Amino acid sequence: MAHEIDRRSLLALGAALAATTGVPALAAENSKTSDQPIRSLMDIPPDAPKVAMLVYPKMVALDLIGPLTAFRIMRFNVQLVWKDKQPVSTDVGIPVIPSQTFDECPKDLDVLFVPGGILGTIDCMNDPDVLTFLADRGERAKYVTSVCTGGLVLGAAGLLKGYDATAFWTVTDLLPLFGARHVDKRVVMDRNRITGGGVTAGVDFALTLIAEMKGEEEARRIQLIMEYAPEPPFKNGTPQEAGPERVAQLRERRKGMDAGARIAAEAAAKRLGL
Amino acid sequence: MAHEIDRRSLLALGAALAATTGVPALAAENSKTSDQPIRSLMDIPPDAPKVAMLVYPKMVALDLIGPLTAFRIMRFNVQLVWKDKQPVSTDVGIPVIPSQTFDECPKDLDVLFVPGGILGTIDCMNDPDVLTFLADRGERAKYVTSVCTGGLVLGAAGLLKGYDATAFWTVTDLLPLFGARHVDKRVVMDRNRITGGGVTAGVDFALTLIAEMKGEEEARRIQLIMEYAPEPPFKNGTPQEAGPERVAQLRERRKGMDAGARIAAEAAAKRLGL
Repeated sequence: MAHEIDRRSLLALGAALAATTGVPALAAENSKTSDQPIRSLMDIPPDAPKVAMLVYPKMVALDLIGPLTAFRIMRFNVQLVWKDKQPVSTDVGIPVIPSQTFDECPKDLDVLFVPGGILGTIDCMNDPDVLTFLADRGERAKYVTSVCTGGLVLGAAGLLKGYDATAFWTVTDLLPLFGARHVDKRVVMDRNRITGGGVTAGVDFALTLIAEMKGEEEARRIQLIMEYAPEPPFKNGTPQEAGPERVAQLRERRKGMDAGARIAAEAAAKRLGL
Repeated sequence: MAHEIDRRSLLALGAALAATTGVPALAAENSKTSDQPIRSLMDIPPDAPKVAMLVYPKMVALDLIGPLTAFRIMRFNVQLVWKDKQPVSTDVGIPVIPSQTFDECPKDLDVLFVPGGILGTIDCMNDPDVLTFLADRGERAKYVTSVCTGGLVLGAAGLLKGYDATAFWTVTDLLPLFGARHVDKRVVMDRNRITGGGVTAGVDFALTLIAEMKGEEEARRIQLIMEYAPEPPFKNGTPQEAGPERVAQLRERRKGMDAGARIAAEAAAKRLGL
């Protein structure tokens, strides 16, 4: 049984979106599409880097929101791209409305980014529309990037062949299927490919990318605004830290999902001729 | 000029929300309210802790999404509460739909949580409805918690008087106005008050709270799922790390907002008789 929201709230969604700077507005009477950027609280400079962040059903919200927070403070021209503008679901129950369709997305991007979320990732690895879009934009983008299982989607699009890369720790063994070499680092940069580990690696990834694009001082500024001086209460964020017993328990719980990812990865690799 | 979304997308929002487990569904024909919980991808056990997370216009999404991600994996019974169910705006342009109104929120909570976002925080500090709700639920909640400038809202509701606490680094000097003592730590726990620093401190806060409520082993499990082994590329996440020059630059850019927070804090303290 789903949570119910009344008609007034539905209409209010439009009003709230329209009233908020930086939020795609709902203009129910208007069926035109638009390629105007999402706007932040501050205006976006005309020469701001063009960033396309893939969003997709069943994605992990934090994979997106970590880097997005940093990019918005940087006043990058960020678009949330998907095949259509229907809201996509996320792990935390907060839907995300795409701001641009694949067709509307500029051909030449500064940054192409793919977040993770294993169930949605598997769907993307099996979806020719998604893979064709990523392969095309990734061919010309200045930076081709991912966090978490998003790395598998890049791989399935043929964008990691011959590159060092990483992904969420439970699926890094699939990267070689795509011709990539897994490097066991939080953020892996190989030429213009920058891939991050799972979920919370998005902030480390974003600061690395910002430093690369705009210099260390800008990355430091964003880090201070985000008060990013993490202090995990335990050392348990990697398989090495957690130890074999905890890793085995978690893999057991996830085995269906991770096996599904392997099947999709093998199929994608075969299509790529790898 | 706002981004436009057509009518089909508006209708599709309802369908997407309804189709997604864990997402409040839009039932446009139905005007009943509901106090059913937001549900995660897994069912929520009947004895799951009741967590009310305040959401409000102009909040910082990451303040919410960090802890929310951890709570959802824990299968806590999380509600996003606000005075009504109109979507609230966030810094990253992704609106959040409240799942419960103040009236619908259970009287006895396990966790009351307030995220930050300075402009919205100022509004909350000046809003009797918000402060009355928080003061009431906070009086009985097992844990009264915040991240970022959310600590100022707790303070304005009278919930930090006599407690150690922290908040986003630019506004910690306001905590004593509420009778709180600022302790310069990432996460401060004083009896049942747990307050975190700015933005990215939400994950550290959530793991601390989960360990407190459900034991260290559960917190470690969540940490591994979120691959939380942060590696900031620079040491610049605190004023001490960043040094006086960068701190002065950032304070200068923020001085209007932070001055606004002081005015609101002083007014709230006066109303509380502090």
